[in-house]
Amino acid sequence: MAVKKTLLSFSSGTWRLPHSVLLEAQKDLLDYRGLGIGVLELSHRSAEFAEILEKVRSNLQKMLNIPQNYKVLFLQGGDRGQFSAVPLNLIGLKDNKCADYVVTGVCSAEAAKEARNYGRVNIVHAELDSYTKIPEPSSWCLSVDASYLYYCANDSISGVEINFIPDFRDAVLICDMSSNFLSKPIDVSKFGLIFADGQSNGCAGITVVIVREDLLGSALSGCPIVFDYKQHADSLHNTPLCYSIYMMELVLEWIKRIGGTEAMESNSLAKSRLIYSVIDDSNEFYVCPVDVNCRSRMNVVFRVGGANGCSELESSFLAKAAELGMILLKGHSSVRGICVSLCNTVTLEEMQKLIEFMICFLKEHQSTVQ
Amino acid sequence: MAVKKTLLSFSSGTWRLPHSVLLEAQKDLLDYRGLGIGVLELSHRSAEFAEILEKVRSNLQKMLNIPQNYKVLFLQGGDRGQFSAVPLNLIGLKDNKCADYVVTGVCSAEAAKEARNYGRVNIVHAELDSYTKIPEPSSWCLSVDASYLYYCANDSISGVEINFIPDFRDAVLICDMSSNFLSKPIDVSKFGLIFADGQSNGCAGITVVIVREDLLGSALSGCPIVFDYKQHADSLHNTPLCYSIYMMELVLEWIKRIGGTEAMESNSLAKSRLIYSVIDDSNEFYVCPVDVNCRSRMNVVFRVGGANGCSELESSFLAKAAELGMILLKGHSSVRGICVSLCNTVTLEEMQKLIEFMICFLKEHQSTVQ
Repeated sequence: MAVKKTLLSFSSGTWRLPHSVLLEAQKDLLDYRGLGIGVLELSHRSAEFAEILEKVRSNLQKMLNIPQNYKVLFLQGGDRGQFSAVPLNLIGLKDNKCADYVVTGVCSAEAAKEARNYGRVNIVHAELDSYTKIPEPSSWCLSVDASYLYYCANDSISGVEINFIPDFRDAVLICDMSSNFLSKPIDVSKFGLIFADGQSNGCAGITVVIVREDLLGSALSGCPIVFDYKQHADSLHNTPLCYSIYMMELVLEWIKRIGGTEAMESNSLAKSRLIYSVIDDSNEFYVCPVDVNCRSRMNVVFRVGGANGCSELESSFLAKAAELGMILLKGHSSVRGICVSLCNTVTLEEMQKLIEFMICFLKEHQSTVQ
Repeated sequence: MAVKKTLLSFSSGTWRLPHSVLLEAQKDLLDYRGLGIGVLELSHRSAEFAEILEKVRSNLQKMLNIPQNYKVLFLQGGDRGQFSAVPLNLIGLKDNKCADYVVTGVCSAEAAKEARNYGRVNIVHAELDSYTKIPEPSSWCLSVDASYLYYCANDSISGVEINFIPDFRDAVLICDMSSNFLSKPIDVSKFGLIFADGQSNGCAGITVVIVREDLLGSALSGCPIVFDYKQHADSLHNTPLCYSIYMMELVLEWIKRIGGTEAMESNSLAKSRLIYSVIDDSNEFYVCPVDVNCRSRMNVVFRVGGANGCSELESSFLAKAAELGMILLKGHSSVRGICVSLCNTVTLEEMQKLIEFMICFLKEHQSTVQ
């Protein structure tokens, strides 16, 4: 039943899944570990599911060194759900309901927009013309009365990654790690809350929220019950998404086997350096608009045929790549051009195929843009 | 790889899935219809996923005869999410933000509680001592200014089903069909909105919302973007839960093959009648507390050893059933006793095994309670 992968998907929309994970998932679909019923049919009240949930929680705690005073929650509604849930739960931490936001991409811009429904939002830096750089943190102007400081660690659309943890004494740091979660070790103790949509880890549907306990209990009235962190921390309130949590267990076990978040980090650095070097050595045939110091390891964004891109060349690039089985390379409509998403599961060998294609395409078309 | 089912799960928490559905799902996990990548790896922006989504929508439209002026949305957050989303979107339909609720079980009680966060809630009947009956509709007292009238078609915890569509001119009917969705034909045109958590149809994670178009656009400010019906109706706003939608496609195709919602209805009537007749012929050894005219076809609730149940007998009943491979029969803690959930996929043959056991258990223990 095992099929050789013939397509290479570089989409940020979903994760590639390792073959070993898929094989295990396939087996468990019809018979979960000898029980005689499939994993999709397990009740969320069953001992088997309780065990899966406990394993996922404990694997995450070990893998990310999550301190004892943090709760790990599994919610629904994706990252967009958290754009609302964060202010609904936390903007009331201080009486005047104000929050600081760093807006360096489409995701943080949408998060800030949602937060305005619930309180005053202060963007801590001058508005950016384009999402291609990170304003120098020393220039950020934080409010004295903000309940928290929010940022997005990696914008998968713009290809911008904040590769440091902002250091502001007293600020409660909130971070959207949806698109680079588990791609490197992280010092959880620096954060008030971290959230990550499971989608980029092959388990769409589940949103992991890691939250410091002392921040719980300040939800605004009108916070929908499914977004109330304290309710979730106190009990298995809502029926959890068993299958997505099960998939997360398989993915976490795979990451452990591969070498944990340290291995994920070195892989992602190796892969992204390879592709950025092709771009930078292309004599501006390929152009990455993002500042060198904040180029994403996870989503490499570039134009083909110069800084403004040549639509004919970009269409041709996408078409030729697709002919070779490399798909979903088209950049988001707000950025255009190409976006190569390098999830943890994309191997160096697979990247090599893309690199070879990029070099061939460059040689073939370089002359046309000079 | 096909494993004979050895366990019979009668849980309301998850659905049994037909063997043919599981086999197809198993195949598609590694190679979705010859593409060379698995269904879990499909991007939500891919042509393949667009096709799945279109098929699910069109199958639902045909199967339920959904009129043209209704939108079919696929949201996240389960039924509890909708307990908030309904008032957030609809309580503002009229200026004074009032809604009528029928509270005949745990689910509708929680829905009414959530709605109180967003406006005035009027329970249209006297409060019930226990969730075992439906107050006579002619006695319901509707508000003149309510934005809508809300009820839950089937309470899976209490085993109470409202087997008629309340007929009140001008009232905008909202119905939670989470636990009996697709178990019978339904006249959608009578409703302003119907929602159903996919869980009880084997596709946990997805919540189907069928809403009349003219009701869109009145969301309260502060409605989280993932719950804003209009946003979802206008575009594929949030990344959808591709896998759950894919599972729904498989389940809908299976229901079509079996004979549609008409077949589901006659199956559910046959199965539930069988078990209720054993209960009613047991000389009060088994006692169903629910009024005869609103006993659920989907969740049969009863006590063992008399109307108040005998805890020793109930424990023994559950233990012996489990020995025979019949699991998850324990009633919810608020109701106690036994709960047999009869999802569409539970076959008459499987029911027969339970019936035989119930009759044997009755014969063996009847004398102890006389």
